[in-house]
Amino acid sequence: MTTAPLNMPSTPSLTIDQAIARQAIDSKTKPLGALGRLEDVAVQLAVLQGTLTPSIGRTRVCVFGADHGVSDEGVSAYPRAVTGEMMRNFDRGGAAINVIAAANHVDVEVIDVGVDADLKALTHIRHQKVRPGSRNMCIEPAMTVDELAAAFAVGTAAAQRAVTDGVSALGLGEMGIGNTTAAAALLSALTGHSAEITVGRGTGVDDPTFAKKRTVVEAALNRHISKTSAVTNPYELMRCVGGLELAAITGAALEAAQHGIAVMADGFISTVAILCALRMETVPGSEEGRGHTPLSGALFFAHRSAERGHGLALEACAAATGCDARPLLTLDMRLGEGSGAALAMPILRAAVAIMRDMATFASAGVSAGAQAEVHTAPRTEPG
Amino acid sequence: MTTAPLNMPSTPSLTIDQAIARQAIDSKTKPLGALGRLEDVAVQLAVLQGTLTPSIGRTRVCVFGADHGVSDEGVSAYPRAVTGEMMRNFDRGGAAINVIAAANHVDVEVIDVGVDADLKALTHIRHQKVRPGSRNMCIEPAMTVDELAAAFAVGTAAAQRAVTDGVSALGLGEMGIGNTTAAAALLSALTGHSAEITVGRGTGVDDPTFAKKRTVVEAALNRHISKTSAVTNPYELMRCVGGLELAAITGAALEAAQHGIAVMADGFISTVAILCALRMETVPGSEEGRGHTPLSGALFFAHRSAERGHGLALEACAAATGCDARPLLTLDMRLGEGSGAALAMPILRAAVAIMRDMATFASAGVSAGAQAEVHTAPRTEPG
Repeated sequence: MTTAPLNMPSTPSLTIDQAIARQAIDSKTKPLGALGRLEDVAVQLAVLQGTLTPSIGRTRVCVFGADHGVSDEGVSAYPRAVTGEMMRNFDRGGAAINVIAAANHVDVEVIDVGVDADLKALTHIRHQKVRPGSRNMCIEPAMTVDELAAAFAVGTAAAQRAVTDGVSALGLGEMGIGNTTAAAALLSALTGHSAEITVGRGTGVDDPTFAKKRTVVEAALNRHISKTSAVTNPYELMRCVGGLELAAITGAALEAAQHGIAVMADGFISTVAILCALRMETVPGSEEGRGHTPLSGALFFAHRSAERGHGLALEACAAATGCDARPLLTLDMRLGEGSGAALAMPILRAAVAIMRDMATFASAGVSAGAQAEVHTAPRTEPG
Repeated sequence: MTTAPLNMPSTPSLTIDQAIARQAIDSKTKPLGALGRLEDVAVQLAVLQGTLTPSIGRTRVCVFGADHGVSDEGVSAYPRAVTGEMMRNFDRGGAAINVIAAANHVDVEVIDVGVDADLKALTHIRHQKVRPGSRNMCIEPAMTVDELAAAFAVGTAAAQRAVTDGVSALGLGEMGIGNTTAAAALLSALTGHSAEITVGRGTGVDDPTFAKKRTVVEAALNRHISKTSAVTNPYELMRCVGGLELAAITGAALEAAQHGIAVMADGFISTVAILCALRMETVPGSEEGRGHTPLSGALFFAHRSAERGHGLALEACAAATGCDARPLLTLDMRLGEGSGAALAMPILRAAVAIMRDMATFASAGVSAGAQAEVHTAPRTEPG
């Protein structure tokens, strides 16, 4: 149980910039830079929260569940029924995200934004089904304009609940048979990379299904995103080749950042949805009614997934924002569900602890080193 | 607060082998292998604890502090006094290890095994000083035979306290100005690598000090470990070019493993000491009075340090045992103190949770996938 007081100023002091936060970290009792990326995380959280005493109190992972019309094409190792079955598993607390989150003191909120199963009897699931699965992108756009808006709003509402509940870091996960196919299509649409390199094996499909998956993504891209149509609006790309849970993640990420909540991307699907959110921020007029925190300032990447396209999605996030899109963990995971996000939350807790609670050389009466006085000291190269 | 019951059987069932543990993980509700290295950690902990319901209850990091005679040669960016000053910082809870461990619910035990300062007044430190700093390895062996034995015993006693206190995972950290020099010398002695590649910048020395550090390590190696003398006994290598806290870590690692406690290596210095422990296990007669758990079965590597020689030390650990010496975290840290070990503990907790608490396909009524029935399904390559 984290006992630190929740510190989530509604009006962040704008006087905490990177330089001030870095100076604070450099005064702590350790050689300059010796805590590596933990220091970078601490600096980012201090700037995000507008304080040199940042804190991570309550943490949460949202798992948005939805089915995909494109699963009719036979692109997964698992039948579509598994999405609903896994929602029941979440409801009973038996899935990976449940047990990993519990081990790490992270809340889990599971939201049915579009599962093709009757889940009304489940009491630990939020029921916000927009429709029972997106439409088959090989035949028509995955969502209508209204469906996209509704799914996006489900995500926005989840972020607003997080604000109300005093959550300081929000992981964004998903469940949906067929959603690595949708994410690969969306990644291709957003970046121009061919299906050849964005499509991976997802849950572990065999060679014929893998080939089929690529063909399906190519067909969807040809139908909706042909080079001549010049569709580049990220909302429209999401609508045509995305999915209900992807749209919800996008909405949640943008809304959470506005409130100074740290946003933790999970794996491939989550990262592609967040890439789309980063692109949405650049659409003229999108800043209306929004605060001043860009998503990139709130964003952390939990882990480097073993799913093929994740590296490309991370590179695109870095390119879109200039933000550091290096994931915190590399453990060859490729499950989704927000499992990586839950696993990475303790790193945020440790990062704020060093910024907030460590003694300084001055306060502890520790002698400064020869290099502790200069900020340009050579840092040790990785060995 | 981890509420799972502590599960540390004094007589582990020897019927839990890798294959049985892997089968248990493969029955869980997730695609085969989708939790990546978390699954490997779970399997190792199940085998170590001799149960398919492993648990990580209490966790601890021991920080062994000692000074080094070799610091007289001018090999650090910090004066020798910093070791004692940092022990006071630990005592007051202001150091990185204190705050990272607190954030992660990990106990910290700080032990003075050889600090060259009068620390008697400190009440949160264990006082087991063997002597105020090791001897200068450029002039004489770092320890006498008796001093080595005493320092080793300090580590053994720490592991025994961990057993008494019901600790299930023990991180091994250190504090000591000059100890990257000793660790580099010991690594060279154990592996035959030249000082050219084992010596790094430690706390961040400038170029002249870096050059000096290499020269000092070469001189110590020439004095004690000349090719003609053929000294290969790891105890003797530790005695000549090691240090009091390095010896204590070695003793703690070997003793903890015997009791089925997971041993978490920290960074460069900790890993070199543990490499020495792995070599000690192979010395004829060393198994006397010991149980059957080799250190490799209990051993986890917390993080890949930015300190230059750490990669070499990890490779040597892997070669010595055939064990998987890939660290759990790569965050460019290079602080020591057990800070990486404390940061990695939540990964062990998550790993046992998936083994112990996740539902199986059968128990959750989730449909198995096309690949969930075969163990040879192609796993997704990292993207």
